[in-house]
Amino acid sequence: MMTIEEKIKQVVRNVPDFPKPGINFKDISTILMDHETSNAILNTLVEKYADSKIDKIAGIESRGFLFGYALAMRLNKPFVLIRKEGKLPFDKIKHNYDLEYGSATIEIHTDAIKKGDKVLIHDDLLATGGSAAAAAKLIQKLDGEVSAFNFIIELSFLNGKEKLQQYTKNIVNLASY
Amino acid sequence: MMTIEEKIKQVVRNVPDFPKPGINFKDISTILMDHETSNAILNTLVEKYADSKIDKIAGIESRGFLFGYALAMRLNKPFVLIRKEGKLPFDKIKHNYDLEYGSATIEIHTDAIKKGDKVLIHDDLLATGGSAAAAAKLIQKLDGEVSAFNFIIELSFLNGKEKLQQYTKNIVNLASY
Repeated sequence: MMTIEEKIKQVVRNVPDFPKPGINFKDISTILMDHETSNAILNTLVEKYADSKIDKIAGIESRGFLFGYALAMRLNKPFVLIRKEGKLPFDKIKHNYDLEYGSATIEIHTDAIKKGDKVLIHDDLLATGGSAAAAAKLIQKLDGEVSAFNFIIELSFLNGKEKLQQYTKNIVNLASY
Repeated sequence: MMTIEEKIKQVVRNVPDFPKPGINFKDISTILMDHETSNAILNTLVEKYADSKIDKIAGIESRGFLFGYALAMRLNKPFVLIRKEGKLPFDKIKHNYDLEYGSATIEIHTDAIKKGDKVLIHDDLLATGGSAAAAAKLIQKLDGEVSAFNFIIELSFLNGKEKLQQYTKNIVNLASY
């Protein structure tokens, strides 16, 4: 029987030179189209977090909305949107972070996190960890506690986990490259 | 006992004057945070489509990824990404459509739809129907069949359903304003 990591690596599509030459893009659209593998991933995550003390799951726009929201509903936990600048309509705070070229800004509603909330931050892929670290800063600004990071795929050669260690040691991914 | 429409209207947040003066924005983030209402919505959708002849569910970026993907996994159907321009990495086609000011472009992978696939197009909110109609055109360009549109909320005064009638008469929403 294949492990979940083997299944993911069998189904994910490698697209060379996207979005620019030299980058081997991990395309999860083939996982979303394969409902058996996709549900196997969700089942694995549900088992992993069923007994953990998590109050809320926060997903990073937009691919973090996929497994993140489905997992939150399976675990019966509130789902929190972390969105790109200008999308959230209510009272919010923002955090700006550097990209390889330029910068990006993400936002969260101020009423999405209550003081002491234990939050699992989810995204589909961990690369350098810039957006996950920015999400962690937003949670902390609202006096929430970053309890865990979860990713489906990690690009370990980019050392994203090192950057995230300062928020929590609880960093999980299902497949590693 | 409250109907699902009453529950949605009780939980959704109305934000006046967003994104611009005069628009009363329907903020679904409060629904995502209320896992009981959110799961009640998913259960309602699962019942509605459990016996329908749908091959795939397509969700429109980015809020259409939330209920769309979770529903696809509950129904054991493939989920297809319809994304904003420049995000999809593989062979793709695009469709451009007019907004109130300016225009927008969405894309789909060419291998996401096979000839004759019966597709349910999902988004969280139906306004003028511009992006849902554009999604339908993408499905048709790939020789797929638009079997149904699904939305959580409809702004009926914008007459979006009229625009979508030409693709299918099967247009469902759970709450109407």
